[in-house]
Amino acid sequence: MPLAADSLSATFAALSDPTRRAILARLASSQASVTEIAEPFDMSLPAISKHLRVLERAGLVERGRDAQWRPCRLRAAPLRDVDAWLERYRRFWEGRFDRRGAYGRDVDRKEGKPARRR
Amino acid sequence: MPLAADSLSATFAALSDPTRRAILARLASSQASVTEIAEPFDMSLPAISKHLRVLERAGLVERGRDAQWRPCRLRAAPLRDVDAWLERYRRFWEGRFDRRGAYGRDVDRKEGKPARRR
Repeated sequence: MPLAADSLSATFAALSDPTRRAILARLASSQASVTEIAEPFDMSLPAISKHLRVLERAGLVERGRDAQWRPCRLRAAPLRDVDAWLERYRRFWEGRFDRRGAYGRDVDRKEGKPARRR
Repeated sequence: MPLAADSLSATFAALSDPTRRAILARLASSQASVTEIAEPFDMSLPAISKHLRVLERAGLVERGRDAQWRPCRLRAAPLRDVDAWLERYRRFWEGRFDRRGAYGRDVDRKEGKPARRR
């Protein structure tokens, strides 16, 4: 995976793996040690640690400072940024347009059909 | 980029590039030809076409059937799936928890502090 130049790209890249999304889902219920996180996965501890490092670099997971037990915690801030990024696309599925949506109207315009009433 | 086994992974991988996100933003206002899409970018037409293929494979862009002019259109369905995936994380930034959120309460429990009142 190439180093992502911007944080949104790093977030999306980190989320593009089902194991990493499953780890986040686990951490959404509570913080957990690497061993606890690894338990439900048919995967070695080093493999899980590698996924955790990707999530940490993307700012989606942080480690506790306790030297004995460094729990992993979800950091939701990058997900909030994804939520904000989605904002301009929500109109496409939230019924603010008719079924054909913006494209229907766009095609109508190009085809010289009258604009639909709102 | 490895072939993503599931559609959500393919969507996130496609979104992990700023040029591809800019193409989607362009298509959110109207359909466009490859040449029109390429115009604002300091990038060759083949480079743009490559990004478009990634977006098409992820189902985020579809091409029109007109043999003369095959416009690219946004397909928002995969973005709606991202929106649905985010659902379980929204409570972390939508104020349904206090500032420290679920983790604050989780740490309190581990440290033997009484549960906070709702």
